[in-house]
Amino acid sequence: MQTANYLPTAFLSTEDVLEIVRRMGLPAVLQGLADTIEADFRRWPEFAKSPRLASHSPLGVVELMPISDASRYAFKYVNGHPGNTALGLPTVMAFGLLADVSTGMPELLCELTLTTALRTAVTSALAARMLARPGARRMALIGNGAQSEFQALAFAHLLGVRELRLFDTDPAASAKLQRNLAGSGLRTVLCENTRAAVAGADIITTVTADKSRAQILTADMLRPGVHVNAVGGDCPGKTELAPDVLRGSSVFVEYEPQTRVEGALQQMPADFAVTEIWQVLSGRMPGRTSTEQITVFDSVGFALEDYAALRFMQDAARRLGLLQLLPLIPALADPKDLFGLLRPACALQQAFAGPPHPPAAAMRTGPWGQPVPESAAGFAT
Amino acid sequence: MQTANYLPTAFLSTEDVLEIVRRMGLPAVLQGLADTIEADFRRWPEFAKSPRLASHSPLGVVELMPISDASRYAFKYVNGHPGNTALGLPTVMAFGLLADVSTGMPELLCELTLTTALRTAVTSALAARMLARPGARRMALIGNGAQSEFQALAFAHLLGVRELRLFDTDPAASAKLQRNLAGSGLRTVLCENTRAAVAGADIITTVTADKSRAQILTADMLRPGVHVNAVGGDCPGKTELAPDVLRGSSVFVEYEPQTRVEGALQQMPADFAVTEIWQVLSGRMPGRTSTEQITVFDSVGFALEDYAALRFMQDAARRLGLLQLLPLIPALADPKDLFGLLRPACALQQAFAGPPHPPAAAMRTGPWGQPVPESAAGFAT
Repeated sequence: MQTANYLPTAFLSTEDVLEIVRRMGLPAVLQGLADTIEADFRRWPEFAKSPRLASHSPLGVVELMPISDASRYAFKYVNGHPGNTALGLPTVMAFGLLADVSTGMPELLCELTLTTALRTAVTSALAARMLARPGARRMALIGNGAQSEFQALAFAHLLGVRELRLFDTDPAASAKLQRNLAGSGLRTVLCENTRAAVAGADIITTVTADKSRAQILTADMLRPGVHVNAVGGDCPGKTELAPDVLRGSSVFVEYEPQTRVEGALQQMPADFAVTEIWQVLSGRMPGRTSTEQITVFDSVGFALEDYAALRFMQDAARRLGLLQLLPLIPALADPKDLFGLLRPACALQQAFAGPPHPPAAAMRTGPWGQPVPESAAGFAT
Repeated sequence: MQTANYLPTAFLSTEDVLEIVRRMGLPAVLQGLADTIEADFRRWPEFAKSPRLASHSPLGVVELMPISDASRYAFKYVNGHPGNTALGLPTVMAFGLLADVSTGMPELLCELTLTTALRTAVTSALAARMLARPGARRMALIGNGAQSEFQALAFAHLLGVRELRLFDTDPAASAKLQRNLAGSGLRTVLCENTRAAVAGADIITTVTADKSRAQILTADMLRPGVHVNAVGGDCPGKTELAPDVLRGSSVFVEYEPQTRVEGALQQMPADFAVTEIWQVLSGRMPGRTSTEQITVFDSVGFALEDYAALRFMQDAARRLGLLQLLPLIPALADPKDLFGLLRPACALQQAFAGPPHPPAAAMRTGPWGQPVPESAAGFAT
């Protein structure tokens, strides 16, 4: 029995996002995401921004990432639980919402588990386009887990990377990455350790998942002119780069207040200079300024990227006719009469035939006849 | 074509919540919510709490309200846009999530538009059970909008209120309330103004919606022993009580850091004494301590109430077999292989037949061959 009517909140499942990739092709999806994310970074001052709201527990973190401009509000729910894979669950699961700022009405609820992986890789490639040396073709990929293929393909499509030098502490992860990229035309080279993988690389992407203060990269591993795309360190206590890597580099970040807490930057003094990447993408500040310079993109993921990705998926799904409706928000015959929804569902004449219900907790009666919990102590009865 | 498999996130629409009310009856739903909310308030120290994250715009506010204990994480999305009713939309629309803290897995996505109205009224009644004089039967209801019937019925069922004295600046609102409560056994009396409505009332409930610094109640309107249940003031710049009402009363709140910013309390000095209601519900502090005392529950709504309401709806729906599955989080054949989802959807061999795509923004070439936005100025090229 369906008696409630609903306002039009659209829904996109992971299958719908896969269907968008099938119909548009992966290159067009990566390019479309890049265009949308870049366009939103270029209008950075229009957004109301805040660091994400993290809830830490012994096994992981759950985060809410809100952002808005004058017309739309977006947020993402995302977790990070490194131990999940042992339970058969993804490490990162996510979904997000787009709403109309002028009414608060939820327009779109969308899967972001797959979409987060795409937008993270595309954001890395956008930054590298301004920070890596022109003609960079060889990328070291340290950490060959869930995000690694996305990084590889975004850099291949958007930057022209053609060779990957792989290292992971788990050889099975590298083997999976090689299987997944077979036939892509990307050359992959398995390396014995991080030092071997980064030797000769134009770009170094670190995307490791351990929640610890690691030093995957140290300054002595880096040669002049390399670009470091550090993606795996993204919460307090989780870093990948040694402090001397940052000291010897020009460091670029998404949103400085968040990266100071979550990025490799958390290891540095509060006045350590960084540049927000929107300033480079919008032409206000230079990216790379010499062939010898070492650049670092200390990426932690920012709500603006999800806002842009939600907009892209909404537009694509609308164009392709994939939007389904989700019965999330009830339509009211009279919007001032919320109870009108409930009234047909309850028999009011039976409402209080008997005496009022007693409190759930064990209660005694206080000196003025008021209920007092049995556990109460310390005040006069 | 459905190729993605999903993890079991359950979904409850407004229709499902109505079906719970139909099958259990409204009294049992109110009582069940009261028991759950009270039980969660009594274990208050077990929760990780924070004030809600509000995003204000000229027309309204959008808020995220997260909370967690050792086993579950919950959040609510909720807006407040007083102008919505003129557009045919509800003023308040909401939904919420329950997730497993140990994995971050979303367990339940649930409508909270209707449920918020129920939990708010039940929380008011729980507080009044500890703060109103025993035997209170007559309640003034100032503001007869969307929340008013819920307050009326929660106080009728949980506290024994039998007579309502109504006032609203919009007579149509009071007429709607009278229609909705017809046959409930509750006696309703239309009053000419707030002063007339509160005269002789044991309890005064204010639930007005204007986003302004109003003074619906002033101290001279209150007689000794009355309990004020102030529900409508719930964000910065939106108040209902004159400061002298608070000065002459014992004031009880949900979560002090949030109420200091959002409640009637926002008008008072930072050291104005209040008691958190969980301390009363758990017997650590007294509620009402004399017949003459004036008590105020300065309610703004707190995430714990939504956490409890989500748990109640989840349990009820499970018992009644109403839980549907929502394809929100993909199940992965190999949880370390997120790309395995995407691989069948994209033809990698065509991946980068051509040259890499150019940047979306107009670019020129900088002195090191790097791309520079056309708009760039102020650094050497």
